[in-house]
Amino acid sequence: MDPNWNSLRINEKRFRDDFEALSEIGKSGQTGVNRPALSEAHLAARTWLRRQIEQAGLEFRQDGAGNHSACLRCGPDGAPALLMGSHLDSVPSGGRFDGALGVLAALEVLRTVQEAGLRLPVNLEAIDFTDEEGTLVSFMGSYAFAGLLKPEDLSNPRGDPKALLDGLKRAGLSKAGILSARRDPKTLAGYLELHIEQGSRLSDAGCPIGVVTAISGISFYRLIFKGRADHAGSTPMEKRLDAAQGASAFILSLRELILAQFSECFANVGSAYFEPGAFNIVPQKVTLSLEFRATAQPRFRQLRETILKLAEKEARRFGLGFEIEFIGVREPVETSPLAQAAIREAAGKLALRTTDQVSYAGHDAQPIAALCPTGMIFVPSVNGTSHSLDELTHWPDCVNGANVLLQAALLQAAWLKSAL
Amino acid sequence: MDPNWNSLRINEKRFRDDFEALSEIGKSGQTGVNRPALSEAHLAARTWLRRQIEQAGLEFRQDGAGNHSACLRCGPDGAPALLMGSHLDSVPSGGRFDGALGVLAALEVLRTVQEAGLRLPVNLEAIDFTDEEGTLVSFMGSYAFAGLLKPEDLSNPRGDPKALLDGLKRAGLSKAGILSARRDPKTLAGYLELHIEQGSRLSDAGCPIGVVTAISGISFYRLIFKGRADHAGSTPMEKRLDAAQGASAFILSLRELILAQFSECFANVGSAYFEPGAFNIVPQKVTLSLEFRATAQPRFRQLRETILKLAEKEARRFGLGFEIEFIGVREPVETSPLAQAAIREAAGKLALRTTDQVSYAGHDAQPIAALCPTGMIFVPSVNGTSHSLDELTHWPDCVNGANVLLQAALLQAAWLKSAL
Repeated sequence: MDPNWNSLRINEKRFRDDFEALSEIGKSGQTGVNRPALSEAHLAARTWLRRQIEQAGLEFRQDGAGNHSACLRCGPDGAPALLMGSHLDSVPSGGRFDGALGVLAALEVLRTVQEAGLRLPVNLEAIDFTDEEGTLVSFMGSYAFAGLLKPEDLSNPRGDPKALLDGLKRAGLSKAGILSARRDPKTLAGYLELHIEQGSRLSDAGCPIGVVTAISGISFYRLIFKGRADHAGSTPMEKRLDAAQGASAFILSLRELILAQFSECFANVGSAYFEPGAFNIVPQKVTLSLEFRATAQPRFRQLRETILKLAEKEARRFGLGFEIEFIGVREPVETSPLAQAAIREAAGKLALRTTDQVSYAGHDAQPIAALCPTGMIFVPSVNGTSHSLDELTHWPDCVNGANVLLQAALLQAAWLKSAL
Repeated sequence: MDPNWNSLRINEKRFRDDFEALSEIGKSGQTGVNRPALSEAHLAARTWLRRQIEQAGLEFRQDGAGNHSACLRCGPDGAPALLMGSHLDSVPSGGRFDGALGVLAALEVLRTVQEAGLRLPVNLEAIDFTDEEGTLVSFMGSYAFAGLLKPEDLSNPRGDPKALLDGLKRAGLSKAGILSARRDPKTLAGYLELHIEQGSRLSDAGCPIGVVTAISGISFYRLIFKGRADHAGSTPMEKRLDAAQGASAFILSLRELILAQFSECFANVGSAYFEPGAFNIVPQKVTLSLEFRATAQPRFRQLRETILKLAEKEARRFGLGFEIEFIGVREPVETSPLAQAAIREAAGKLALRTTDQVSYAGHDAQPIAALCPTGMIFVPSVNGTSHSLDELTHWPDCVNGANVLLQAALLQAAWLKSAL
């Protein structure tokens, strides 16, 4: 490797021009984008990316799950690839930075290394994973890439099944192709992802770089509280079996539980569905959408058991029936100590302070960690706002993140060489 | 008046045949009916009723609100009518007795008086009011009849506006016609309604006849708890403004309030709507559908003030914004002492015990009480079940109710004569 790579930096202007151009595709309001996975806007963003890849003289690849890659053959023949990337899809009316920053930074790293003519012990690959945000399936591209996607994830998707079929058709993808997209781990030297924090810890601490040590596990459930429908004007209050009482008691005591006993964890009841749902009928059935997160086992298991027991207790307290419907789980993962060290050392070279932190949001890095040593770099989100048109990361922080990604990739590659 | 009318009884077989025939129209399951207002099934029931009226040689009338009447000219020219009736529409998948019993009993009273050739100081009229159950507007027919329906009740109906327009078209009705349906009070001598109790007090007490002394007031509101949408995986629990916390606390404390301080009243939160409603977003806005009932002023006002203050307090407790949207109110009414006395005396003649009771369910009698002296007769509901396919009133109780209606009408007519 060239001894001068320590001083290598990305091309800020090219990076910025890319970012501005991409932000115009599926633009929403003045400051956001609306690019749900496999929508027209999302596919337009991918077409734009492919053009950038090809114009840079990089090799373009697409796998069965629609994941788009740029490949730079800077290593020996048959060398594995050090993968970098994120996703170009957004939540409906989301921000410009979430996902897009990581894809563009990875592309910029490849172009910077290409221009410098560096020879590395690995090849480099920049990837854009399909459907990270879960409008369709949730992490469809990275789960398929890791070989973790199951046929039932596609037959019973989180979003509207018709939207999934329409999206696949629009993108020229098939369910069989998606399920065959597993990448051979031997072809991978590691994965690094730059992403905005989507929380306010870095911004509150005035720290430019977060070193992600773990990505929390997350579980999704539907909890069903079952009472009895009664005429709300003639059934005495004390004789009712009001499903809303148990559901409400759970919503309140869940918060108390987390604050008191699981203060490092998170839980949310994001929606409730009352049936039959009329002014004058006592709720017979209330269905809650529950998710909760913890950063490691056995805490994650313990959280699950405590929460589900609490819900059942609250149902019983009001004489209600109770049912649990399991929707899905993403296990907590720890990032690679090697990748963490590379990120810290890269930041040090750039005179940037770092903070170790856990990601409570899910990322493509989570399934990829099952395949190869994986690391994640966070940059500050102003006010912690994300999944919103108001999402903002100051531009110097974006540049810092991209340079840390570049240097961490080069360090990790160098360390891999010495390990070989 | 004929001195023999004391021994007059309705024709049980004809009454039963009518009931069985009507129960087949819009039949749902083995024991219920599905006749939402102005649906095909409801209109078929009305066509059937009209045929019964005309076959009996009674005069058929329909007003601008679609209310169907049978008229028996048994009084002097220009005499007012003693009105009896209820409604033929049902809640979706409701019971056969709710409403239908009162309409058929009123028709049977007219036929019985007609056959006996009685001359009374009043004419008799049996009425079927439109949309009592509120699938479209709620008490549309009786409110229009009482001159209490407002244009905004039709432009912003409780149900789906399109369903209202479709129903009006199907029935050949117009909004202008409905709003012009007010009946001149001078044409009315009184109103008597036989109805099932829809509660279990009569059945629990083994009492065959309830004398309704008041119909509770009812208010409808939407309560809006406003927090902030945040990423449920990266916003610490203690920093969230979770709209579901305030809404849930209110649902629990509302029940406690009623049990502790308003034990003779009722309240219900029948539905809740969480926005944006995603697993991974902290609820920004929760909208609750609230109703509450009390039997008289000033208690009704006091209940409203206490409940709305409680909701605001719970919103504030969690740092939330709070908005109240008023949907509607039906003021509490007392029934006529004259009608109550007629019902008690009629039951006494038939050797049937009575209990004075308040109706917590709304009835067409509520708006009609603003027009003329109004009374209501309740018969027992098995287990108090109503608005359900399992709704049941034993047939002998139905016959008792119809005979009490007949005798109470004759008594009220006789007393009116002596008062003239």
